[in-house]
Amino acid sequence: MGNTKLGSQSFCPDSPPVIVGYGCAAGGKEAEGPLGARFDHISQDDTFGESSWEKAESRMQDLALKAALGRAGLASDGLDLLLAGDLLNQCIGSSFAARTAAVPYLGLYGACSTMGESLALASLLLGAGYGRHAAAVTSSHFCSAERQYRTPLEYGCQRTPTAQWTATASGAVVLGREGHGPRVTCVTIGIVRDKGIQDANNMGAAMAPAAYDTLRAHFADTGRSPDYYDLIVTGDLGYLGHRIVTDFFARDGVRMDHYDDCGLILFDRERQDVHCGASGCGCSASVLTAHLLPGMEKGLWRRILFCPTGALLSPTSTMQGESIPGICHAVALEGGS
Amino acid sequence: MGNTKLGSQSFCPDSPPVIVGYGCAAGGKEAEGPLGARFDHISQDDTFGESSWEKAESRMQDLALKAALGRAGLASDGLDLLLAGDLLNQCIGSSFAARTAAVPYLGLYGACSTMGESLALASLLLGAGYGRHAAAVTSSHFCSAERQYRTPLEYGCQRTPTAQWTATASGAVVLGREGHGPRVTCVTIGIVRDKGIQDANNMGAAMAPAAYDTLRAHFADTGRSPDYYDLIVTGDLGYLGHRIVTDFFARDGVRMDHYDDCGLILFDRERQDVHCGASGCGCSASVLTAHLLPGMEKGLWRRILFCPTGALLSPTSTMQGESIPGICHAVALEGGS
Repeated sequence: MGNTKLGSQSFCPDSPPVIVGYGCAAGGKEAEGPLGARFDHISQDDTFGESSWEKAESRMQDLALKAALGRAGLASDGLDLLLAGDLLNQCIGSSFAARTAAVPYLGLYGACSTMGESLALASLLLGAGYGRHAAAVTSSHFCSAERQYRTPLEYGCQRTPTAQWTATASGAVVLGREGHGPRVTCVTIGIVRDKGIQDANNMGAAMAPAAYDTLRAHFADTGRSPDYYDLIVTGDLGYLGHRIVTDFFARDGVRMDHYDDCGLILFDRERQDVHCGASGCGCSASVLTAHLLPGMEKGLWRRILFCPTGALLSPTSTMQGESIPGICHAVALEGGS
Repeated sequence: MGNTKLGSQSFCPDSPPVIVGYGCAAGGKEAEGPLGARFDHISQDDTFGESSWEKAESRMQDLALKAALGRAGLASDGLDLLLAGDLLNQCIGSSFAARTAAVPYLGLYGACSTMGESLALASLLLGAGYGRHAAAVTSSHFCSAERQYRTPLEYGCQRTPTAQWTATASGAVVLGREGHGPRVTCVTIGIVRDKGIQDANNMGAAMAPAAYDTLRAHFADTGRSPDYYDLIVTGDLGYLGHRIVTDFFARDGVRMDHYDDCGLILFDRERQDVHCGASGCGCSASVLTAHLLPGMEKGLWRRILFCPTGALLSPTSTMQGESIPGICHAVALEGGS
């Protein structure tokens, strides 16, 4: 039927590409969480041997991508395209890592939705025939995010109950035109939603309406019900955002029986004192590459709707009194063999 | 023949999409330059009626996109995809403008190469059949860039001879699967290049190797010589970067007879005291939409290779002693009717 747009926001490639490799790197706190045993690389002191948190972030991307290429049995120069982004000003985590990768590079900015955006775009391009292999990569680092968005770590500021903990993690996915693994059959590209939330310490609530909208659009565009999927996972809405999305669907009379959130999976919320849960581009990226994809490989789930969410604010927009625009992209992962 | 990858870095859509509309907005200094008469919207005081430079930047994107939609005869909700990015931290210029556009949104970060990146991606997606209309938008603002990257305007710092002047401008292009206008027949996606330049006031020199590499790849991948094009235009390398690229090709024995740079077109370099020329995402975007596309419409050029360049640094990377990674994407614009 050819590559096509479905309904208002969904896009389906003619030849759904295959996830042929994935990899992840994470910090010490993440290693102590429920997924700790599954990361390809761990740095207990979060530096990855580098002299700054920002350089550590580039190094994490490099390690995650190399692990993904290794699983795919590909050399770095076997990639036709690299799509990446992160939270740092001017996305230096990604562009400095891209310097090492040395393949055609497309930089993205989708805040914490970047794993969804990069995976969606790579899938559409590859599925249409543009090259044979593409990689989607993202990262975040607790320390670089704190000093850029909030206060210097040394201040030891108290966190509000609605706050989330930025993951120190990177995830990379390598897609191929052919091979064995889950296929990306359809993606739903998000529309920016802003319901007026101004509290930068409550990003789950700010992003929840975008997640709800994208999920609704996905179901309407594809004619699928939530039941079609063995697992629907947003991320990183955290505890509060996850509850809001559940409530929105309940109000519509729609049951979301198999619905989870990456922000609730990465850490043990009670034991690890992360308040509403995990956040950061690296949250959904590491949950995808250390939990969801390995789980599909083991046959735990056959169909997953992976829906990373992003809060498109900056410290400047907050200081200027702006509310927080949110976005969510949904990526349908199916099958595998 | 289907959508395809050509050689090492080039990608060609099966059905080359058509540029059916374009629009631009610019500030007072830009209005006094050679292209002043051709902007759709001008704000003499660079505020566009907004209370901050950052909000002015979003407003410029909004105006440029509306002008482009107007020329295309489309309502805003007629867009299947919006691809945009800018220089502001977390790309708030684009995401807040996307809040107004309210269509499926993909945020990009390619520094000053963003007009090339957005146009390339929109063309590949649309040319493959994903939707009927897509828009590519970017912007920069002298005042928001100075305070973010350099020093507060009030300091009145002296500029080095190699410095460039960030354009206060936005450009928007609307692409259609069908219609009349130039077609995007092929794009060459850049590889990040870093030759060790560390001077953030000499970005032309930092980006020139990336421009040279992408142009060389484009010629090798497509089998075209520079003569194939009536005009090759990089941007924003400025005076020094343009000379470096010319020298590199001369060293290879390749004559670049019809080669210009967006950084040399937007301002009158001598009269307007902009040292090495213009820069910023808005530079190549406004030169494209106020000069190149109208010129193609008038029959001045039939084939243009449009090659925006980006310096992928941040103030943090510079402070940490890093050199400046550069990138350049080439977009082949052909024909028209």
